[in-house]
Amino acid sequence: MAIEIERKFLLRHDTWQQQAKTHVAMRQGYIKNSVEGVVRVRIVDTAAFLTIKGQTCSFTRLEYEYPIPIADAQEMLDRLCPKPLVEKQRFFIDHGGFTWCVDQFTGANMGLVLAEIELESEDQTFEPPAWIGREVTKDPRYYNASLVNHPYLEWKVRPVP
Amino acid sequence: MAIEIERKFLLRHDTWQQQAKTHVAMRQGYIKNSVEGVVRVRIVDTAAFLTIKGQTCSFTRLEYEYPIPIADAQEMLDRLCPKPLVEKQRFFIDHGGFTWCVDQFTGANMGLVLAEIELESEDQTFEPPAWIGREVTKDPRYYNASLVNHPYLEWKVRPVP
Repeated sequence: MAIEIERKFLLRHDTWQQQAKTHVAMRQGYIKNSVEGVVRVRIVDTAAFLTIKGQTCSFTRLEYEYPIPIADAQEMLDRLCPKPLVEKQRFFIDHGGFTWCVDQFTGANMGLVLAEIELESEDQTFEPPAWIGREVTKDPRYYNASLVNHPYLEWKVRPVP
Repeated sequence: MAIEIERKFLLRHDTWQQQAKTHVAMRQGYIKNSVEGVVRVRIVDTAAFLTIKGQTCSFTRLEYEYPIPIADAQEMLDRLCPKPLVEKQRFFIDHGGFTWCVDQFTGANMGLVLAEIELESEDQTFEPPAWIGREVTKDPRYYNASLVNHPYLEWKVRPVP
């Protein structure tokens, strides 16, 4: 079974940038975007992926991901996905035996920065880096899919990390 | 660009069966199912495919299809697709330089039989076999995706071919 267990956090300050070694550019849109699940098209630098996700239950959801030709992904983003697309730089940071992803959004979500960690079980423990702020895993406003309909630049209330 | 141009017909009588040489079993469900497009999971005998289709315009729609592991397809059909699934035997018939597909539905759509032909352009001509009946390409009741929410066994009015 394909399972994704993920926790997501705001960032307290910018010191994570000193730890970040590599990053990729991501551009993604949603062919389906509902509480029951999403179908996502994502371009990561020069590769592309189609991802099916089921409904989130606690920190967990079914997830299936397949590589697809980048020309198909580009066309689906242009012609089948509602705008704005979600665009971000993803930085990778090794800390305490885990790889953290820090997403620095651009475009319609400029200013938003989120950190994510993928776990092997819901009760797996981890040591949060000093720059980690409040957990937002269960707050639907921070789902990437939500940022299409409610992009960060239009939020009336900005989060306190 | 990935384009599907397809025309669909009812069948006048059963003489198509004499022409049918090969067939496959198909079982499919829909992760997305709306007028804007569908995301379909299909198992064909022992292979499986994920298919993205855009909105239909005249006889034409965008279509992208990718092979996926059969275990993933089985799990998506079980856990992510509304029921009933669409089940059918697809027969292949060579006629007038084209390969016709005749779909004989089973399960919740038992009794429905449809013939399809795939074209290279909307104005491409073809010679219909003698057993071809009324065209239903633009009738949404006959979309396979519609047969999930309105299966043939529940139809109050049966079509006249």
